[in-house]
Amino acid sequence: MPRLKLTIAYDGTDFVGYQRQLNGRSVQETLERALAKLLKENTLTEAAGRTDSGVHALGQVVSFETAQLLPLKAYGRGLNGILPEDIAVVKVEEVPPDFDPRRWSLGKRYRYLVSNAPSRSPTRLRTHWEVFTRLDRSAMQAAAVCLVGRHDFSAFRSADCQALHAVRLMREVRVEDTGEDVIQVEVEGTAFLKHMVRAVVGSLVAVGKGRHPASWMRQALESKDRSRAGPTAPPQGLTLLSVRYGEGRPAHLPPNEPGDG
Amino acid sequence: MPRLKLTIAYDGTDFVGYQRQLNGRSVQETLERALAKLLKENTLTEAAGRTDSGVHALGQVVSFETAQLLPLKAYGRGLNGILPEDIAVVKVEEVPPDFDPRRWSLGKRYRYLVSNAPSRSPTRLRTHWEVFTRLDRSAMQAAAVCLVGRHDFSAFRSADCQALHAVRLMREVRVEDTGEDVIQVEVEGTAFLKHMVRAVVGSLVAVGKGRHPASWMRQALESKDRSRAGPTAPPQGLTLLSVRYGEGRPAHLPPNEPGDG
Repeated sequence: MPRLKLTIAYDGTDFVGYQRQLNGRSVQETLERALAKLLKENTLTEAAGRTDSGVHALGQVVSFETAQLLPLKAYGRGLNGILPEDIAVVKVEEVPPDFDPRRWSLGKRYRYLVSNAPSRSPTRLRTHWEVFTRLDRSAMQAAAVCLVGRHDFSAFRSADCQALHAVRLMREVRVEDTGEDVIQVEVEGTAFLKHMVRAVVGSLVAVGKGRHPASWMRQALESKDRSRAGPTAPPQGLTLLSVRYGEGRPAHLPPNEPGDG
Repeated sequence: MPRLKLTIAYDGTDFVGYQRQLNGRSVQETLERALAKLLKENTLTEAAGRTDSGVHALGQVVSFETAQLLPLKAYGRGLNGILPEDIAVVKVEEVPPDFDPRRWSLGKRYRYLVSNAPSRSPTRLRTHWEVFTRLDRSAMQAAAVCLVGRHDFSAFRSADCQALHAVRLMREVRVEDTGEDVIQVEVEGTAFLKHMVRAVVGSLVAVGKGRHPASWMRQALESKDRSRAGPTAPPQGLTLLSVRYGEGRPAHLPPNEPGDG
């Protein structure tokens, strides 16, 4: 049976999260229902990673097998006609039968938006964390540097994270002032622990507020102790931008880790 | 009695528009209710201009008189505590007793966002007009040039616009490719006719789609005939960015025109 890869985008505001849950509207269930309607067969999907309620995606990757042979474009158009307006299929590709969107992933890129205007910004409510205290951008940038590289990220991992170990490779952490009272944090890494990006952003904001010097970040990281780092930033600022794959099956599959986002 | 000027921001999605209406939730009514609650007196407001349902604001200006003497900061904090999350007070200033937010205005700046990705973008639903056909940015930029200056904008005016005449000074029209499949149109002018910005954007997009050459824009403008220009772009892409004032009462008040947005 052919296997397809969908790149999907969603506004996470009105979802309980990516993963199917007993109660509540999940991205996975909404997508699988649309697939069942289009393909007239029950279709199970696998995703590159879970995202929490309120977390958005521009490039989540989902894969499924199907006995229905449609032209590739017909899947995208058909699904976009059925899906509600807060989910859309961006791209459809055929992939090898053993493609696994999580295990074949070579890296993920996330963006986190912090609104740093002095008062509430109604148009940013669904997409930004609003921090009213003026943040020290340079301190945040200086604090971020120590995160790049291969580290044990236990200090930035949610208590219920089920990953087997906490060593991850962080390829890039970029803290940018967009000039409109918005600070954008972009991270790229092989894989992420549960709530890791949000814990990193919460810690960077703690430095930006002057609660800790920039050098505290390395101490927090090295402590491997969640209670030594900053609070977890709220979900609505986070967007899964993209998942990166190489050509074909990766020679060394990255460890099969639950968690993410 | 002291007169205050409020700069307010709102997400227009869940409002029937700025102006109070018999049926539906308006920005004006929501704001006046919050003022009544804070000041314990019925308070009438005047605004720099109306915005339609779905149109957002980062810098709408509203003014009112009050017998209550609070420190300026207390108005902002008090109102932001009472107002729902889709409206916020950004700034509070004291102004002369005869300040009139519409008549004293020296200019307004609007922004319109067009999403030009090839498929639906769920995170842009409330804030962008989604156009899937690839738009020719250069043609749109070339078409925009003729709009700058003092012109009769009858071709870009809604049928029910109540302004006495259609001559307006457009100081700037900027069409920018933001690089993320988004085209941003920013306009600045002394005042705008009803639906004028949206009719301008609808016409620029018609050029971008290749339905007309760039030179058609000048013909449409010079025709003074609404049916010769392009369709009215939908409201959700539009944001009132700011209203500009000089020092004190303007020497020559601009003509007292209804309309706008």
